[in-house]
Amino acid sequence: MRKIYVIGIGAGDPDHLTLQAAKAIGRTDVFFLLDKGEAKESMIELRRGILKAYGKPGRRIAEGRDPDRDRTPADYEGTIADWRHRRSEVTEALIREHLLDGETGAFLVWGDPSLYDSTIAILDEILARGGTRFDYEVIPGISSVSALAAKHRIGVNRVGRPFQVTTGRRLAEEWPANVDDVIVMLDAQQTFGTVDAQDVDIYWGAYIGTPDEMLVSGPLAEVADEIRRVRAEARARHGWIMDTYLLRRRP
Amino acid sequence: MRKIYVIGIGAGDPDHLTLQAAKAIGRTDVFFLLDKGEAKESMIELRRGILKAYGKPGRRIAEGRDPDRDRTPADYEGTIADWRHRRSEVTEALIREHLLDGETGAFLVWGDPSLYDSTIAILDEILARGGTRFDYEVIPGISSVSALAAKHRIGVNRVGRPFQVTTGRRLAEEWPANVDDVIVMLDAQQTFGTVDAQDVDIYWGAYIGTPDEMLVSGPLAEVADEIRRVRAEARARHGWIMDTYLLRRRP
Repeated sequence: MRKIYVIGIGAGDPDHLTLQAAKAIGRTDVFFLLDKGEAKESMIELRRGILKAYGKPGRRIAEGRDPDRDRTPADYEGTIADWRHRRSEVTEALIREHLLDGETGAFLVWGDPSLYDSTIAILDEILARGGTRFDYEVIPGISSVSALAAKHRIGVNRVGRPFQVTTGRRLAEEWPANVDDVIVMLDAQQTFGTVDAQDVDIYWGAYIGTPDEMLVSGPLAEVADEIRRVRAEARARHGWIMDTYLLRRRP
Repeated sequence: MRKIYVIGIGAGDPDHLTLQAAKAIGRTDVFFLLDKGEAKESMIELRRGILKAYGKPGRRIAEGRDPDRDRTPADYEGTIADWRHRRSEVTEALIREHLLDGETGAFLVWGDPSLYDSTIAILDEILARGGTRFDYEVIPGISSVSALAAKHRIGVNRVGRPFQVTTGRRLAEEWPANVDDVIVMLDAQQTFGTVDAQDVDIYWGAYIGTPDEMLVSGPLAEVADEIRRVRAEARARHGWIMDTYLLRRRP
């Protein structure tokens, strides 16, 4: 039987790695990498460092080309489902070609594999097709949400209150009903600029846990322009950006 | 200056500890423990093991008695605020008495300090009073939510969709508006039994990551009784229970 780990490696700080993740990396024969061909050199470097520190001698790397996808689709969920499907085919081919019987493979996932990541769904899709068999195990990681909250030294919830995690796309439609604390992920459009800023504080962060980390917090009305400015500068400088934020409505 | 770490130590598996947390534990002179006097011997044992493995020689432990609180208050938020206030006084006394100038103290927090934990708020309250000064840093941990999702091998969100994290108390009032994925924490009342079970799946877990771990998943209508039964048995056997679950409405 072949075994695959889906390993959360944390939000960008190599010390976010858990002991469980480091041990799993040390048991892995083949690491599967699907890269987007984007200029995230610092993240690739970080992953390389983790493999060097915790990987076993003789470990192999199997690289696949991540299928392209439409970044501004009319049908978001349909486009993602199609992209996942094509991604699952690339992934299945990698597993069949590179993971021998009795060996252990791994996918390294930024943040936590349960949060806005497709690796679990892709492996389930491969298993459901029935042509390739393996066992898999998920190892949780420090999410960008936990890392953001830790750096700002805040709780994501307030006493006894709920919070919602959503996407920029959804927030652009409306502020979620009956919650005053909203975490926003996958927001390429600075959607915080579209919400009614009155009585709202923002806790924003980018490249959290890395040497490029940026944090801004304060009343949304006062700091929104600053976030837009530093975000645009950083995005131009690095060629990419990964940011997350909490919007908190004051009582 | 005195320094304090608020360290997330994960959801119950000692290997949930991050490298960052292990390093911070190794730099700590005084660990502050506020225990509830409840029979959570296995959790205390686990914490003892972590200190033994990563603590430095000569580390000290400063124990305080957690103030009692009304577990079924009429005014939940007011009662919690009052309890936090009394807790902050006990904590402040511990810090003043045990943490010397130039030393480093730490609070070890189950799961992630940003999620339904009061340590950050208590430290902020002490600092706001102005009588005791220190620097503090938060180290994120694997939350019970991430651990639950990993064990069930699921994402907490679905593609491009939001999810909500709430409490049993809130869920008893209503299913949150416009979300189909709801994580429930702090639920002593098995509130899943009160929701309309049609088209809802549950992913439930208790003592996650420990040798006593229990997992049940399936259509809520079919497994609710089983969860109630195993939960009651486990609670009686251990004297306490910590469980979390995801309710997922099918499309």
